Amino acid sequence: MRRVLVANRGEIALRIIRACHHAGFEAVAAYSDADTASRWVELADDAVHIGGSPAAKSYLNADAVLDAAKRSGADAIHPGYGFLAENAAFARRVAEAGLTFVGPPAEVIEKMGDKATARRMAQEAGVPVVPGSDPVTSVEAAEAAAAEVGFPLLVKASAGGGGRGIRPVGAPDELAAVLPTAQAEASAAFGDGTVYLERLIERARHIEVQVLADHHGNAVHAFERDCSVQRRRQKLIEEAPAPGLPAEVRTAITDAAVRLARHVGYRNAGTVEFLLAEDGQFHFIEMNTRIQVEHPITECVTGVDLVAEQLRIASGAPLSFAQDDLALTGAAVELRINAEDPDADFRPAPGELSVFDLPGGPGVRVDTGFTAGDRISPFYDSMIAKLVCWGATREEALSRARQAVAELRFEGVPSTAGLHARLLPQLAPGPVHTRWLEEWLR
Amino acid sequence: MRRVLVANRGEIALRIIRACHHAGFEAVAAYSDADTASRWVELADDAVHIGGSPAAKSYLNADAVLDAAKRSGADAIHPGYGFLAENAAFARRVAEAGLTFVGPPAEVIEKMGDKATARRMAQEAGVPVVPGSDPVTSVEAAEAAAAEVGFPLLVKASAGGGGRGIRPVGAPDELAAVLPTAQAEASAAFGDGTVYLERLIERARHIEVQVLADHHGNAVHAFERDCSVQRRRQKLIEEAPAPGLPAEVRTAITDAAVRLARHVGYRNAGTVEFLLAEDGQFHFIEMNTRIQVEHPITECVTGVDLVAEQLRIASGAPLSFAQDDLALTGAAVELRINAEDPDADFRPAPGELSVFDLPGGPGVRVDTGFTAGDRISPFYDSMIAKLVCWGATREEALSRARQAVAELRFEGVPSTAGLHARLLPQLAPGPVHTRWLEEWLR
Repeated sequence: MRRVLVANRGEIALRIIRACHHAGFEAVAAYSDADTASRWVELADDAVHIGGSPAAKSYLNADAVLDAAKRSGADAIHPGYGFLAENAAFARRVAEAGLTFVGPPAEVIEKMGDKATARRMAQEAGVPVVPGSDPVTSVEAAEAAAAEVGFPLLVKASAGGGGRGIRPVGAPDELAAVLPTAQAEASAAFGDGTVYLERLIERARHIEVQVLADHHGNAVHAFERDCSVQRRRQKLIEEAPAPGLPAEVRTAITDAAVRLARHVGYRNAGTVEFLLAEDGQFHFIEMNTRIQVEHPITECVTGVDLVAEQLRIASGAPLSFAQDDLALTGAAVELRINAEDPDADFRPAPGELSVFDLPGGPGVRVDTGFTAGDRISPFYDSMIAKLVCWGATREEALSRARQAVAELRFEGVPSTAGLHARLLPQLAPGPVHTRWLEEWLR
Repeated sequence: MRRVLVANRGEIALRIIRACHHAGFEAVAAYSDADTASRWVELADDAVHIGGSPAAKSYLNADAVLDAAKRSGADAIHPGYGFLAENAAFARRVAEAGLTFVGPPAEVIEKMGDKATARRMAQEAGVPVVPGSDPVTSVEAAEAAAAEVGFPLLVKASAGGGGRGIRPVGAPDELAAVLPTAQAEASAAFGDGTVYLERLIERARHIEVQVLADHHGNAVHAFERDCSVQRRRQKLIEEAPAPGLPAEVRTAITDAAVRLARHVGYRNAGTVEFLLAEDGQFHFIEMNTRIQVEHPITECVTGVDLVAEQLRIASGAPLSFAQDDLALTGAAVELRINAEDPDADFRPAPGELSVFDLPGGPGVRVDTGFTAGDRISPFYDSMIAKLVCWGATREEALSRARQAVAELRFEGVPSTAGLHARLLPQLAPGPVHTRWLEEWLR
């Protein structure tokens, strides 16, 4: 492995380019029409155009990406997150083309991408899952299953993920209406109308565990993140470690994640997501078989460069550390700065980023793919930047985050920065649950 | 202590403002005409104009600074580095005005500011000094003293510091010419023509120890920095910890620094500078009684916010940690980005910073007071930014520094960035001595 095609855009494309350089690989940017003049394209060692601005014509176009790898002489492809990152068919084609896919084997993506299979894997590995059903096709079957699962519950698309394809059901009489809608939505969104039921655990925290596994039988965790500050199941603020998590829960949940990774033959970096209920019990929800948006907070508290480690693992190298080498140092928080208008129902608001001054100083890390003068394109995700703040204590990390968001200045597009400024003081007391933000916003 | 006047400008002004906010104090910016529209003034809680653009009319004007503190209701003054930071008379006036000086007592500044007294203090504390003489006034006395000190030697201004007021003498016959020149220069630069002789230790490394002492009898060190990459005694790249320093030397040199701090009744943050000779012996050169430009690399490897700690100490709080709480984690390097033209003998080149895109990602910290569109003023120091990179290993820190300097983009003024890009690969093998850069530049 010598030359890596970066099959993504924005901050994660630049993040991968940086990691390539640190791990000793060349990085080739693959870019769409809209991204021709972007910062990450400029900072890559080489760049290939892959198609038109709509993602379907470029970043989601497997043929174009594979062709770009061939044309540029790349021998590996890093998919980042989103786009083709969890597309098993793409991972398989990469391997068949004789290239290295920087991620787990296609079979593992496939297994964990199907929620029902993933639940079964967890159960086999002795990892607690949220009480739920097998796939249900008829309203009758759903009603029977719901009686066992209990209310409130969620109708979830088997092929969903990342918080998409989920519908809540508060009482038995709603099921007949919700089921066909959920099936139709799942079919439209994922090309697969299969759904199943899962108990809705109220006032739960979203806790996820970072795992890493190499091709030499080593599998470790890099502790957990708390991503409970969400709106419509989209994470907005993440923390590492999870505040106030009892040591025995940390041990149990990280052990469970590594157990699952081993059980499914996991390779590379992945994230095992759990709900932590008020009673202290945790339940597996899904595994993301890719690098996560919020990976930097784990890097801050462990000192590990997760993306460089992904590349090393993919190249066949053993993990560069053992479980016992990892320890938590301090606390970190990530704020997602999206080009959205919180006063207009978080509507994405593309436009020209006319001013873009970044915060700095101790403990402050900024990950962005943009620079002043860039156009924030309507074709893609609205995330402009991640402000990542580390502190020796959680209090210091939050204080630095407040200062960083106050220092951030940009003009041209609305953003979530002002919301973060108002939210941060609310987080001081400690853990919140996954519906907290929506309740607070009301 | 509630409200701190920041009696400085540029990156250190913003650094102090940040620390005020983290330590729970309000920050008042004191600004000159040239700095009216600056970023740190905007980010302070309040701001007062102190005078014209030339430093003598503003940042060096003690009357104006004291008046600004009164007008703005500040009860403390942080002097940063440079300007009034090591002016004992100013520190005394701050105290007499009933305000808190964020630094050591005036007597300590005075003592350590006079090189001959500082040497005596070191000797009293059992800290090895560079072989040297008492002050010499006549050529005859200098020749007699030189016979004891040995050649090559330096004629140093007693009132000098920060690498200024130093003249090398290679052989006895040069002394008669150099002495009066050095005396005249010292008189002109520091208002005091006193000089003394010191052996020139060739191929030595510049190693300095960060110390912190509170008003409750606690004095600790925060390990050492290697600042051997210098040009004309001006530091350009600094590292923490010092690469390849044997553990027993680290213990001895940090012990010596704390011993000296205790001996002189030191309070607040300070730096004890040493030369480390090729034979492994270290020799005290001077103590800087203020925060140092390169303090961030110590923050990166210890996790301590040194400027917030300065404020807490000044407010009367005990040190927030004990010596045993501090440990070295990884390695850090700082690159000074100066608006100077390395191809024109490092001539400062003020102008408009038309583009200023900062690097980011894991382990990268940027300290700057400027933003795109700012004018780099001819009235002040040419340092625009400090790129501070941490890594789990020295190799990783240097790799991140290389990437960071490649990502840094600015237009409008020349800078030392390109020089750093060429220098960094040269540093990979390990320690260099203080004349290495000048030899390499030839």
